[in-house]
Amino acid sequence: MSFDFEGRWATAAGLMHAHGIDAMFVMKPTNLAYLTGDGRPCALGLLTSTGRFIVAVPECDVASVRAGSHATDVRSFRSEDEMFHGFRDVLTELGLDEATIALEKNFFDAALHEVFSAHILPRATVVSATPVMSSLRMHKDAQEIELLRHAAQVADVGMDAAVHAIRAGTSETLVAAEAEYAMRKAGAQGWAAPTYVASGWRSAMAHGPASSKTIEAGEVVQVHVAPVIDGYTVDLCRTMLPADASSEASADLEVYLEAQQAGIAASTPGAPLLGIDTAMANVLETRGYADRFLRPTFHGVGMEHEEAPIPGGHAVIHGEEQIEDVEAGMVLAIGNCGIYREHYGVRAEDTIWISADGPIELTQYPKNPRAH
Amino acid sequence: MSFDFEGRWATAAGLMHAHGIDAMFVMKPTNLAYLTGDGRPCALGLLTSTGRFIVAVPECDVASVRAGSHATDVRSFRSEDEMFHGFRDVLTELGLDEATIALEKNFFDAALHEVFSAHILPRATVVSATPVMSSLRMHKDAQEIELLRHAAQVADVGMDAAVHAIRAGTSETLVAAEAEYAMRKAGAQGWAAPTYVASGWRSAMAHGPASSKTIEAGEVVQVHVAPVIDGYTVDLCRTMLPADASSEASADLEVYLEAQQAGIAASTPGAPLLGIDTAMANVLETRGYADRFLRPTFHGVGMEHEEAPIPGGHAVIHGEEQIEDVEAGMVLAIGNCGIYREHYGVRAEDTIWISADGPIELTQYPKNPRAH
Repeated sequence: MSFDFEGRWATAAGLMHAHGIDAMFVMKPTNLAYLTGDGRPCALGLLTSTGRFIVAVPECDVASVRAGSHATDVRSFRSEDEMFHGFRDVLTELGLDEATIALEKNFFDAALHEVFSAHILPRATVVSATPVMSSLRMHKDAQEIELLRHAAQVADVGMDAAVHAIRAGTSETLVAAEAEYAMRKAGAQGWAAPTYVASGWRSAMAHGPASSKTIEAGEVVQVHVAPVIDGYTVDLCRTMLPADASSEASADLEVYLEAQQAGIAASTPGAPLLGIDTAMANVLETRGYADRFLRPTFHGVGMEHEEAPIPGGHAVIHGEEQIEDVEAGMVLAIGNCGIYREHYGVRAEDTIWISADGPIELTQYPKNPRAH
Repeated sequence: MSFDFEGRWATAAGLMHAHGIDAMFVMKPTNLAYLTGDGRPCALGLLTSTGRFIVAVPECDVASVRAGSHATDVRSFRSEDEMFHGFRDVLTELGLDEATIALEKNFFDAALHEVFSAHILPRATVVSATPVMSSLRMHKDAQEIELLRHAAQVADVGMDAAVHAIRAGTSETLVAAEAEYAMRKAGAQGWAAPTYVASGWRSAMAHGPASSKTIEAGEVVQVHVAPVIDGYTVDLCRTMLPADASSEASADLEVYLEAQQAGIAASTPGAPLLGIDTAMANVLETRGYADRFLRPTFHGVGMEHEEAPIPGGHAVIHGEEQIEDVEAGMVLAIGNCGIYREHYGVRAEDTIWISADGPIELTQYPKNPRAH
């Protein structure tokens, strides 16, 4: 699939102009993929506001990058030192030594950001690339939605394999094994997040990557899958109640699903972004769950497991801009918060495309599968 | 398995004292696991030089952290905002408002580092925690070596499954499926790096996560696995030549394996760390491969896929200290560089424990498996 890279660069140039940015370094593989069609680790690109894209890759990667990348100029290096230092010459070549240069401040670690700024950009003004990249990537086009539909189908396949593998006496990691195996067979090329299988007391934790714990009879089991297919990923979480679930657990899941549906219904273009949170929280609080859920209740998803828009104060912590409104083209994972009790928790999360006509659920696995 | 956390804290206190550090924030899950026995995302700890360890976790995680963590004080929060802001009070409580505080500068992204320093540590002196944490974690004890042996056995199982799955007409991702499935069944709880299956022209790239590419007859196939078992991981890479491999490809792999063995032989306690690189490079350069490999030729491995020691100038880029000598207790992945040609590449990487008596190979899969 070939994307409209020229269009993306033109939009980027407009955003860079608005932020006073002359050129933007791109090192995060998902950002490189978005802008050139080729995202790989250990590659560094520079996009100028005048539409040049210079990318440096390991010498052995030059042929495959030339074949797959839309960059205007592919250069090679033989060590990480060379990768960074080579760009001093590039900046001089382009007359950008004293320009305003954007770096991916929510991807570069603090140590690298410091070294890079001091050694490669000693006279430049260094700003964040996040407002540009997040604004670009937050608005998915029709081709991206098709890829996300495919990723959602694969996630549904993985969830079904997990549901069928859950039984007393097996281990969480063996359930994850079946889910991942089925997703690979359906086309997954990897995982945007660890596969979660959290049973019993582990389902009460906010994060439950599959462990070696044995699943016991009567335990609640949460499963979360995030396959990557052609660079795109979705978020899908389900909670499987045992056949003899307590009325408390059944009620918890019912209320949670109601809250999630309220959040999805609130995700219409033009509505306030935090209205999704309010809608979910209203249901949970009215039903007596005010102390039993954690924020954020949702987040963006697409090329990464968590990406823009990140709601409210969480945006600051993730180095993202605060976004005011739901916009057409956003893709959101809604249902990130769970209901947590002392000995178990329930959660359901789906990936929702905000179409011009309203929210459309990409993940379609049944909301309340009873597995065992 | 219970580690000697008191001993680790005492060593940390000595290192903190030497670096003038009063307290150290710990957020990286592997560092939290190393210091408390419980490493999970979305948790933040503070270790003081006087032996207090305060950790804040989501409210729903408190019970499981209390059960599994050696921290002296477990506090709860209900949002990321609260997680960070709560530590302002902790620092005041402990009289550390104007102290020297270390942050994990090679884990915090630049945006978070900036916000955290400005809002939580406005009057403190902020320094890097890396010299303390890397020095601690670089020296593995006997219990850690046992866990790494187990991880190596699981990696060997995964490699064997991959070798048996490789055949013309299958896809790279299906080979990865078999490897991961076998590793989960052998006890893997997840992956420290994507599973690489790189066939034909893709084996010429520095990084080759399994794609949907079909493996064709006569292609070289590189496989790389990095299972996580009980918090520990190893690095294992092999190259499978086809039955009718060219004499050039066969010679490439033979020379590469000879270079790798030279690197392993050079990894004895007290020898210069970069001597491992020199030993490998000497073989490759003497045999005419000076232009066909990339550095670094090796790196540390253990709780993370790449950790201290990171050799030479690469250390700076990874925010690590430069380490001069090979030391007993280090665990190294040797063979990180490959030999790259235009249409294929060969590589073999093993995980080596530097015992007091010299290097011991933890990964033991045959070096030159012919698969297909």
